[in-house]
Amino acid sequence: MRVLLDGMGGDNAPAEIVRGAVQAAEQIEDEIVIIGKESAIRKELRRCKYKGDQITVVDAPEEITMHDTPVRAIREKKNSSMVRGLNMLKDGEGDLFVSAGNTGALIVGARLLLGRIRGIDRPALASIYPDMETMKPCLLVDAGASAESKAQNLLEYGLMGSIFIEKVWGRENPRVGLVNLGVEESKGTSVTKDAYQKLAQSNLNFVGNVEAREVPKGACDVIVCDGFVGNVILKLTEGVSLTIFKLVKNAIMENLKSKIGGVFIKGQLMKLKNDFDYEEYGGAPVLGVNGPVMKMHGSSTATAVKNAIIRGIPYAKENVVEIIRQEMLDLDVIEEE
Amino acid sequence: MRVLLDGMGGDNAPAEIVRGAVQAAEQIEDEIVIIGKESAIRKELRRCKYKGDQITVVDAPEEITMHDTPVRAIREKKNSSMVRGLNMLKDGEGDLFVSAGNTGALIVGARLLLGRIRGIDRPALASIYPDMETMKPCLLVDAGASAESKAQNLLEYGLMGSIFIEKVWGRENPRVGLVNLGVEESKGTSVTKDAYQKLAQSNLNFVGNVEAREVPKGACDVIVCDGFVGNVILKLTEGVSLTIFKLVKNAIMENLKSKIGGVFIKGQLMKLKNDFDYEEYGGAPVLGVNGPVMKMHGSSTATAVKNAIIRGIPYAKENVVEIIRQEMLDLDVIEEE
Repeated sequence: MRVLLDGMGGDNAPAEIVRGAVQAAEQIEDEIVIIGKESAIRKELRRCKYKGDQITVVDAPEEITMHDTPVRAIREKKNSSMVRGLNMLKDGEGDLFVSAGNTGALIVGARLLLGRIRGIDRPALASIYPDMETMKPCLLVDAGASAESKAQNLLEYGLMGSIFIEKVWGRENPRVGLVNLGVEESKGTSVTKDAYQKLAQSNLNFVGNVEAREVPKGACDVIVCDGFVGNVILKLTEGVSLTIFKLVKNAIMENLKSKIGGVFIKGQLMKLKNDFDYEEYGGAPVLGVNGPVMKMHGSSTATAVKNAIIRGIPYAKENVVEIIRQEMLDLDVIEEE
Repeated sequence: MRVLLDGMGGDNAPAEIVRGAVQAAEQIEDEIVIIGKESAIRKELRRCKYKGDQITVVDAPEEITMHDTPVRAIREKKNSSMVRGLNMLKDGEGDLFVSAGNTGALIVGARLLLGRIRGIDRPALASIYPDMETMKPCLLVDAGASAESKAQNLLEYGLMGSIFIEKVWGRENPRVGLVNLGVEESKGTSVTKDAYQKLAQSNLNFVGNVEAREVPKGACDVIVCDGFVGNVILKLTEGVSLTIFKLVKNAIMENLKSKIGGVFIKGQLMKLKNDFDYEEYGGAPVLGVNGPVMKMHGSSTATAVKNAIIRGIPYAKENVVEIIRQEMLDLDVIEEE
């Protein structure tokens, strides 16, 4: 396998990206191609004292910034690390593309340059969402690639998420749930009601509607919702969690007695906070395009980069894209019959 | 003022409802009419040793259960406490209706029996949402009366919520925010983009788009969103909060050292958990119908009932319904000009 790594994307590029690549190379046999401003990347490789030949560099000096609109960035910056990397993936010069760059540009780029899998109406961005009780990762689809969805899109999200979890994470028969107002199939909008029927008639392990209250408790492995709701779920979970941790900290600092108590439980609380650390899970897949693309968080550190590379490889190795393509063909056949 | 209280609604009716009424009567001068199965209510009044004449009882023996569909319950159970209470409010036999009954039935009943305020397309259910950092209550509209909204509905939610907070809670110039994918006005669905423009052009104190991450931090006083997103925000906040509290508790129970620490900080943590207690805020208003209606949580205890009555009275006393009616007339004039 040959991993194509966007050397310039994210807040900590290229230093943390390169460090992550070097750390990954110590654990895997696969090649890593870092794409970006060659001089800067080579400088970081020297800083890491990297001397092997498992990591190579491809020069792509143009930069996509947060100020570029996604479509313009992809159309005009042909020699940016992102456009170059996606084109290399398309041309078979690599098997997986991993990037911490501008999310909008990555989704647009994947759609425009790789193209949608035949039958997929809307590619999706997935996101890791931990079951907070067991810390087992679940997959939320769509995390914000599209703000609005049709019922067919929600079915596709369930299908693609299910295949990804099964093949990449090795979780058998993953439970697919639809975020909705209530558990009854009559609940929700016209779109969610229709999606319920489509999911129920599919060959997925559909566990039905899931209320938002149950989402943090691991009610399902694949959390299906439109991109607007997905964005609300991810950001609200972050907002509520951080606020409560802050309040717990303040409660401990309130008086001498509670401060003494805090010293005793500090270890446990730190461990708990680390469990919430999304870094460990690495990246999240862009699903529904003709090639395996992993998106890392913009603020990814070396550890996150390393994990995204290592955990992303099965996305390519297990032929997830081909399996989704086949499933869509089968769906087509069923619909035509 | 004459408060009409649904004696039969909620999980703890009529015992906790009656106890709450008796507690409220000790603190206010207003009359309270408890509507429901008279014998059961009188029995509870005797149990409370209530002997005054501030509380009266109106017999309405039919019961609306969780199994009744809202429309059928309202149409067919004319002598239920809910239908009777709403009709009394409509006929001027009371000034405020407070109920812990079936939410769907209450909204449908308010709409069918009281009617919508002229110009309001969709009545809304509001919900108290605490700013978790300061514990100051904010108001989320819509909390689930409609699953889908048009831009005009979102404008109405902002308008009604703003008037309610200003008149009932006495908060001047409340900040109205629109839940959206990002702060830029170009973000979101066609509906939220359109709603942004309408809110920005209104005379409300519109603070713009609010990301879900900022909602628990009191980013605005009136949190505007469609009922689907409102439901997700409320239930996910509950799910994440309870899960984290459970994890903190487990972390404390992990070993002897942390257990000792836990004893020291127990007081502070309990205080923190109580701050999250929605009971204190009492009820939440149904907005946009021709009469002040307050909805209490289905599991309301006597304290919640007492607070809903006391805090609901300004909804009637401050003529909120009339002010909304007037604002809608003014909007009409502006649109026609």
